[in-house]
Amino acid sequence: MPNAEIIAIGSELLTPFRSDTNSLWLTGELNALGITVRQKSIVGDDEQCLEESLRDALKRSPIIISTGGLGPTEDDITRKVFARVLKRPLVLHHDILDRIRHLFESRGMKMSSNNERQALIPRDAEPMTNHHGTAPGILIHEGDCLIAMLPGPPREMKPMFTSYVRPVLEPLAGNLRMRTRMLRVSGMGESQVDSLISPIYMRYNNPVTTILFNNTEVELHFTASAPTEGEAEKLLDEVCFKVEEALGENIFSHRGETLEEIIGLRLTVKGYTIATAESCTGGLIAKRLTDVPGSSKYFLEGVVAYSNEAKTRLLDVPEALIAEHGAVSPEVAEAMAVGIKERSGATFGVSVTGIAGPDGGTEEKPVGLVYVGLASDFHVKHRKFILPGDRERIRFLTSQAALDLVRRNYLL
Amino acid sequence: MPNAEIIAIGSELLTPFRSDTNSLWLTGELNALGITVRQKSIVGDDEQCLEESLRDALKRSPIIISTGGLGPTEDDITRKVFARVLKRPLVLHHDILDRIRHLFESRGMKMSSNNERQALIPRDAEPMTNHHGTAPGILIHEGDCLIAMLPGPPREMKPMFTSYVRPVLEPLAGNLRMRTRMLRVSGMGESQVDSLISPIYMRYNNPVTTILFNNTEVELHFTASAPTEGEAEKLLDEVCFKVEEALGENIFSHRGETLEEIIGLRLTVKGYTIATAESCTGGLIAKRLTDVPGSSKYFLEGVVAYSNEAKTRLLDVPEALIAEHGAVSPEVAEAMAVGIKERSGATFGVSVTGIAGPDGGTEEKPVGLVYVGLASDFHVKHRKFILPGDRERIRFLTSQAALDLVRRNYLL
Repeated sequence: MPNAEIIAIGSELLTPFRSDTNSLWLTGELNALGITVRQKSIVGDDEQCLEESLRDALKRSPIIISTGGLGPTEDDITRKVFARVLKRPLVLHHDILDRIRHLFESRGMKMSSNNERQALIPRDAEPMTNHHGTAPGILIHEGDCLIAMLPGPPREMKPMFTSYVRPVLEPLAGNLRMRTRMLRVSGMGESQVDSLISPIYMRYNNPVTTILFNNTEVELHFTASAPTEGEAEKLLDEVCFKVEEALGENIFSHRGETLEEIIGLRLTVKGYTIATAESCTGGLIAKRLTDVPGSSKYFLEGVVAYSNEAKTRLLDVPEALIAEHGAVSPEVAEAMAVGIKERSGATFGVSVTGIAGPDGGTEEKPVGLVYVGLASDFHVKHRKFILPGDRERIRFLTSQAALDLVRRNYLL
Repeated sequence: MPNAEIIAIGSELLTPFRSDTNSLWLTGELNALGITVRQKSIVGDDEQCLEESLRDALKRSPIIISTGGLGPTEDDITRKVFARVLKRPLVLHHDILDRIRHLFESRGMKMSSNNERQALIPRDAEPMTNHHGTAPGILIHEGDCLIAMLPGPPREMKPMFTSYVRPVLEPLAGNLRMRTRMLRVSGMGESQVDSLISPIYMRYNNPVTTILFNNTEVELHFTASAPTEGEAEKLLDEVCFKVEEALGENIFSHRGETLEEIIGLRLTVKGYTIATAESCTGGLIAKRLTDVPGSSKYFLEGVVAYSNEAKTRLLDVPEALIAEHGAVSPEVAEAMAVGIKERSGATFGVSVTGIAGPDGGTEEKPVGLVYVGLASDFHVKHRKFILPGDRERIRFLTSQAALDLVRRNYLL
């Protein structure tokens, strides 16, 4: 099985603030072709360091993929250094220059002379068109070695890899094909999941099972290798079927979809609509639901009502109810859900009220206390949560709890 | 200034699921001592790869820090490979073995014979006690080079670095201290920023300037070194003052704050309040504003109104106006901003209406067309944008444009 090596370029990747994440996606793509990643190197915008890394990589790896350093500024050194190490002078490509100039003009801007650099391509190299930015990528066959220089921004890097690099790698790949599958689990902890499914996955060396806990949910990753993709899929089917049986409706996603995507699919299939009334999540639930393309078909409207007055004016929550139970209470959560359902005419109203912190907690109602409400024409209910973490985590976990309540009640 | 190099060891770091994050923390610690990180390498549990990486690192870096590969299993190869490359045979330390055995016994477990390996230390090396696990770390002075092998789990690695490695590095670090600063810029592209400020920063080797474009805004990172932190700050002041002069109000953040944090600070200072009316951003603007702790003081309420009917019912946008101009129009954006301002009683109403895609675009009104509206008691205005990218990017850029419109008009 051939090896690849990834070089991530950029001084920001050697600071405490930024890490290379492109290589995770690239590794997934390479693995799918049966190519393993042998090593990753991360270097700054430093010509000598990059030169050494490239020379070392050329000695050991038949596939070298770099990301970053193709921008228009002085410290974007990838083109220059690769050209020097590979002894291929840079040549100005007028068609690329025209493309970049045109790109600027179409946005009503003037191309800066800096950008001319991006039209320089090493001799006998193949430029890769960037459909999402100015920097073209560069593909070079150097003896038996394939070198691909990709831009750093993921939205430029990913489509360029898919369009240009993958087709060239496919014939280089070995006889084994790898397939992966991800199941996502809500409402259970990592060790609870593991104790249920380890008797299953421990019996298999292939697929390999990895359990990851990403702060808000448990992800199960399965990777199978076989001579054909079909055979690898069959290996996945066998283990996943048993795991799905063990975890039941706690699995909300069978192909890696997000919770909001799953809810969108199920709402669409059933012809249902939804509306949101949020306090402590401040629009996050509406935002997540509308992240999904086509969500205007089932998402009717959302209200963010922080103050008591707004809860009454926008959601018809009776003033007396708030006075009696407090804004963070099961009664108000249910009234908010009913209010948004009635006003919007949606099939469901979902609501949250809680204390995300860092301030506002009391002994009786601590930071992390959250009530989620759900109303349809036939039922009204709520659930109480005491959620851990900082403001950001509490808000995300609250949105997850609200969406999962909808899923488990009406969308299984 | 001395350079360090970090080698992260572990096959899980070469999968699509896990990346090395230890090095971010280590980099922060090293930078605080005036030590820069020159390169990071990530290798699997593969003896040959690790051996090559270590040999390369020894050639170029006086400080080498490895993480991982010190566990008790076959594929924990760090001790073995470092001992071989440095030509120092492994010696069994009986005191360490006793400590590990005792650790197991104190948990009521029997030490597996695998764990004996963890008591093997290269000759003339200094073991570092692990107070949070079984694997001791190893510290080696090899000529002028300092080599520290740390365990992979962060809760074992961090205290070991602090107790054993930092005290050894302090005298090596020399007399320099490093300070960093970040400025964030809105409303300008990377190359436009660079052409304005490169005549400034090119004149300075210290601080070092890095320009980052993170999809939606330009970040300027400055790193200065000087004998004292105060002097480093002065160097930063000098360059940043000139850069701030050149970029003016396009700089929205001088200490790394987010746009929503800056708006929160300014609204608080001025005693203003804000409310949002969103169509295509679906709650993202409200979500971002309420990401900030304490936002309930100035964020009054938000409405997500996708349908025309909801725009009329929730925001008093006249039906006739929508019929005449369409929902995505300057007139409707302004009417939405006025509507939410009037209904909420906030100082400002900010609104967006646009087409985030992937569907819904026409030749006349393409995907990416967005109008942002802003209303106060004294002015109503709008701005038109044609934004690039996919749904997620268009939505984020729209939220950024809306927040920036507020900032530039009322909060400078």
